[in-house]
Amino acid sequence: MSLTPISITSIPGFKFGHYTDLDAGTGCTAIMAPEGATGGVDIRGAAPASRETDLLRPENTVDKVHAVILSGGSAYGLEAASGAMRELEEHGIGLDVGVGKVPIVCSSCLFDLAFGRADVRPSSMSGILAVRDALGASAGKELDEGTVGAGTGATVGKLAGPACCMKGGLGARAFQLGPLQVGAIAAVNAVGNVVDPATLAPIAGMRASAEGTEILDMEESMLAMASQLTMPLDRTNTTISCIVTNAALTKAQATKVAQMAADAYAHTIRPTHTTNDGDSIYVLASGSLPVEAGAQIPLDLIGLIATRALEAAIVAGCTEATGLFGIPAHKELG
Amino acid sequence: MSLTPISITSIPGFKFGHYTDLDAGTGCTAIMAPEGATGGVDIRGAAPASRETDLLRPENTVDKVHAVILSGGSAYGLEAASGAMRELEEHGIGLDVGVGKVPIVCSSCLFDLAFGRADVRPSSMSGILAVRDALGASAGKELDEGTVGAGTGATVGKLAGPACCMKGGLGARAFQLGPLQVGAIAAVNAVGNVVDPATLAPIAGMRASAEGTEILDMEESMLAMASQLTMPLDRTNTTISCIVTNAALTKAQATKVAQMAADAYAHTIRPTHTTNDGDSIYVLASGSLPVEAGAQIPLDLIGLIATRALEAAIVAGCTEATGLFGIPAHKELG
Repeated sequence: MSLTPISITSIPGFKFGHYTDLDAGTGCTAIMAPEGATGGVDIRGAAPASRETDLLRPENTVDKVHAVILSGGSAYGLEAASGAMRELEEHGIGLDVGVGKVPIVCSSCLFDLAFGRADVRPSSMSGILAVRDALGASAGKELDEGTVGAGTGATVGKLAGPACCMKGGLGARAFQLGPLQVGAIAAVNAVGNVVDPATLAPIAGMRASAEGTEILDMEESMLAMASQLTMPLDRTNTTISCIVTNAALTKAQATKVAQMAADAYAHTIRPTHTTNDGDSIYVLASGSLPVEAGAQIPLDLIGLIATRALEAAIVAGCTEATGLFGIPAHKELG
Repeated sequence: MSLTPISITSIPGFKFGHYTDLDAGTGCTAIMAPEGATGGVDIRGAAPASRETDLLRPENTVDKVHAVILSGGSAYGLEAASGAMRELEEHGIGLDVGVGKVPIVCSSCLFDLAFGRADVRPSSMSGILAVRDALGASAGKELDEGTVGAGTGATVGKLAGPACCMKGGLGARAFQLGPLQVGAIAAVNAVGNVVDPATLAPIAGMRASAEGTEILDMEESMLAMASQLTMPLDRTNTTISCIVTNAALTKAQATKVAQMAADAYAHTIRPTHTTNDGDSIYVLASGSLPVEAGAQIPLDLIGLIATRALEAAIVAGCTEATGLFGIPAHKELG
């Protein structure tokens, strides 16, 4: 068997949609599992903004998630998930509680307030529109990537300040191995640089100057400027992701896959998991792969493929991005 | 400022010692902080064996650790920490509880029962001898590395079974940046291969055959043999480490540095954090660096240097190892 690239939108049980505000430089992305998917999460950054992550702990009761909203807008962006809930309720999607349905919507946000407008953030209506975009997507339609959705205001390589950074964005990649399908979607807004995981060559990151095209090694720069190093809050960051798979996983297994996939951040973002990154990874497992087939696949293999998919999604978030507000992207400098 | 290699034994406040049993292929290593050091821990592997990690949680009371014991012997090896406690009590080292001293000894173990003898594991006496070796070490004496201490029975690259693996071992490396000193000690017993973090070239790992010298890419092998992939428990593994620094850290900061340093595993071990690795990293901060100097150093920089030191220690664990029981080491194949 070999690892074959597939479209993330071809994985059954999931739908994807964006809300994009290019004027304000922000947006959000809805990853929908209308029938519910078993969820897990791993939060390794020190500055997360999130909701409904406690219920994902293996010991807690609810195990089916109906949507993950990745959003810009810092903690304000959590509002988009409230809108997503209302739209899911309209469609009769959610946990049946007798008197109605309660959609389970997890969400994590990234900080893009210092990019574009600080006073315009993804709102309830943004979440509603992202869900409508997802539910209305025709089967097989490719997902837009780059400067879109939760990646609209994303930037990378911010040690030397906003003028020298480069545009990050939203990436999505998926692989198939035998009957197993694993995809990853990532909104890449790291403080660090993004590198090719196979060659460690820089993809996008901190430039030597606001006009420059050379990408400096940020870790070496941190060491060189150690005595005057500061990382102020206006450079706040975060890369947020969601893994989707057709495997049948328990909540505990989904949690472990999320933990394993965090190595994709270490492989592609330098530095990562800093005090100013709220790095968070969700896992949604639809279980549409028959258990007898899925039972053949060790969890370590699912974790490895999730890591590979997330590495590719993180790189794609930068290679698919287009510049905005004078901040260039990989495409323009390559 | 630039990152300068130093000896880990030159960092004030810490002492190091080994107990090595080359006949049984096991041992343990004592990392001592006789005056106490603020502790943190990060456990990312799915199969850990540990003690006194709960007290390291930032919300819990005790914040000074007197020793970390890294041990072979799987969970049986936790006995070595009990011996270490008794030896520390003899030396009057521990938390003063009025009626005596209670030494705070954290410990993690790796699985080496399938290497050498399964029925001989580090005992209380092994812990006592490792502590004596540490307390008796003369100032400036270099720490032995390779097939020694907790690394005595360590092996790496075990997907294709024990015959094709290579010898891992114990490594220790440290760096100085300005007044900051950060060292790492690691006992490298991963299921995965160990690679050079700068070039991704293999250092030690799964060989094509029991007689072979070629190291196969284990992740690609996992993907290729997916349909018949199994990882039985007799290949149980684990890389266990301890970071030591002269920085003054709170427990919460020490925990965060341990989390950041876990990226060193992702950078050097492929795959890592599997269901059969109990990967665990301690941090001990002596605080001997004056706070006014330490206050200049952002936590992200300490995390970065800890990651670099741990990467170097993991590589050294393999490059310093010597073969045992017919399992070759990097030195012999290079």
